[in-house]
Amino acid sequence: MTKREKNRMTGCPVAYGLDTFGDRWSLLIIRDMMLHGKKTYGDFLNADEHISTNILADRLKHLEAEGIIEKFQDPDNRRSFIYTLTEKGFDLAPVIFETIRWSGRHIKLNKERKALLYRIDTDRKGFLNDIRSGRV
Amino acid sequence: MTKREKNRMTGCPVAYGLDTFGDRWSLLIIRDMMLHGKKTYGDFLNADEHISTNILADRLKHLEAEGIIEKFQDPDNRRSFIYTLTEKGFDLAPVIFETIRWSGRHIKLNKERKALLYRIDTDRKGFLNDIRSGRV
Repeated sequence: MTKREKNRMTGCPVAYGLDTFGDRWSLLIIRDMMLHGKKTYGDFLNADEHISTNILADRLKHLEAEGIIEKFQDPDNRRSFIYTLTEKGFDLAPVIFETIRWSGRHIKLNKERKALLYRIDTDRKGFLNDIRSGRV
Repeated sequence: MTKREKNRMTGCPVAYGLDTFGDRWSLLIIRDMMLHGKKTYGDFLNADEHISTNILADRLKHLEAEGIIEKFQDPDNRRSFIYTLTEKGFDLAPVIFETIRWSGRHIKLNKERKALLYRIDTDRKGFLNDIRSGRV
């Protein structure tokens, strides 16, 4: 039994969450899909944080196995894949939102990020709808 | 410059949050302080997830450096230390709450954890007050 499986067996919802989505790279990939409209391996690779290819491949596999993301063949380019969030993945929006709110109290945000925080604070429901319908 | 420092420089509030509290062990320590009244090195060591002593020592040091927790000499036992959450640490409650809510939709919770989730859903403010005043 791996350490991860052992931890899940404690039944703690915090531990389960952390084992499923809570390593930093996984949540950054989810952020990119949720807030930046990123969909392809190349998109994720180009994030500001410079994820390495082997970590990216590993995390995409993990998130797919956990049912957080789904992988489809790109209808426009059969050699390429598109990743989308599942319901279980979209459900993570409040965790991302609260992380942003917390950071917003402790670091200086640029104009664009202040606008994001403002939307989370004043129109959370509308923002969630836009995320789910791909309008972000 | 370390990878962590580089990531912080992107200014992304999600990346900042993850770098500060978002490795699984850090958030489990914060959970133990916030929800289970744990205060000492020995308390954290005895968590269900069996954190190793070297990881625990490293994460406590990191969380203290980040201003999430504070370390005091135990007035009752001068050879021992007590750890408490700072304001910045208590501020993480919504992130923990949303992680619990998310997990509550995807795994079976026992009775005690269902009660915790119910309180988060129905009396978030009162629960936060109890956490801050050490009544949890």
